[in-house]
Amino acid sequence: MAVYQKSIHFHSKAFDAVYDITERVTTIVRDSGIENGLVNVFHIGSTAAITTIEYEPGLKEDFPAFLNRIIPRGENYQHNNTWGDGNGDGHIKASLIGPQITCPVKDGDIVLGTWQQIILIDSDNKPRNRNLIVTVSGD
Amino acid sequence: MAVYQKSIHFHSKAFDAVYDITERVTTIVRDSGIENGLVNVFHIGSTAAITTIEYEPGLKEDFPAFLNRIIPRGENYQHNNTWGDGNGDGHIKASLIGPQITCPVKDGDIVLGTWQQIILIDSDNKPRNRNLIVTVSGD
Amino acid sequence: MAVYQKSIHFHSKAFDAVYDITERVTTIVRDSGIENGLVNVFHIGSTAAITTIEYEPGLKEDFPAFLNRIIPRGENYQHNNTWGDGNGDGHIKASLIGPQITCPVKDGDIVLGTWQQIILIDSDNKPRNRNLIVTVSGD
Repeated sequence: MAVYQKSIHFHSKAFDAVYDITERVTTIVRDSGIENGLVNVFHIGSTAAITTIEYEPGLKEDFPAFLNRIIPRGENYQHNNTWGDGNGDGHIKASLIGPQITCPVKDGDIVLGTWQQIILIDSDNKPRNRNLIVTVSGD
Repeated sequence: MAVYQKSIHFHSKAFDAVYDITERVTTIVRDSGIENGLVNVFHIGSTAAITTIEYEPGLKEDFPAFLNRIIPRGENYQHNNTWGDGNGDGHIKASLIGPQITCPVKDGDIVLGTWQQIILIDSDNKPRNRNLIVTVSGD
Repeated sequence: MAVYQKSIHFHSKAFDAVYDITERVTTIVRDSGIENGLVNVFHIGSTAAITTIEYEPGLKEDFPAFLNRIIPRGENYQHNNTWGDGNGDGHIKASLIGPQITCPVKDGDIVLGTWQQIILIDSDNKPRNRNLIVTVSGD
């Protein structure tokens, strides 16, 4: 058993932008040399989230549109009253979806469906540098 | 430390059907011989999700009814306009809940509450063959 | 590779109360002596959930208020008709958010953002004793 850990950094434009990070995670899994186990993808911060989706132009609009329908940006959140940074919706969206995912590693590769990509959705209200940690563990 | 990995396959009728997969996961954990560690249950695909619930007839109706209230099947999703497959709601539901769960393994068994079962909820709009990977890792 | 597993117990007042459990999880990670790997935090039960949030007074109100807006306590859930315990909303909230989180361990410590805390949100309708299992695995 071994642990292999790498970071992913990128610049995000926020406002519910959706980023496909599958290829970067896949590269880390292959570089690890681990054949069977788990890979965890974790976003450091409280206004962006990790999940999977079929990454295609339609859903890249539909998923944020849904989130903005149930958690509207302009609503009167207590968070905004406290800090005045106006991103209360982004915090709630990120807590709802969650900052991480753990996927299986099998035969030296991550297991995902053909139309299932790992995404980061950034719900902050200003461009941000985003940092993730990818941890591969197994044999 | 060891890794033990098995698949679960079953036929699903979709339309937000809820399946209790606890017994199949529990069997894999016990077969693994691993005493303490983690078990990850991952659904391969983008229109079904994994979570826990008290698996009883009331909640089997309530949880899908809630999802259909916030993500109605008949809404005009861009995904449906692109592909014409009419399952945009299923993709959004699955991305919201997420495709996986990781639970503790303690004294050779999975740890869950008495009224806490692991479920797959399938939100596609046609019957599907569903494939999951269960990964047990630990001592 | 090693596994280190400890429980967390505390009394919760429920009704969507939010508890910051970061310090207790951090202590377990440090006590484990594990330098690099993963830490999984799992709530045993079906009416409370685990996620991360910026733990500050505003969001402690905003996040429950959002959940109560999309999953109102007083609605006519089938679960309540079956069992008469009136906590159908709590079950749905907990299944939506999920009972667990897995975070990276790096250089002997859990990795989180400065304004990112691990919380339990208890959506039951009576005070409860809550039990969690924290599993640290790695090198």
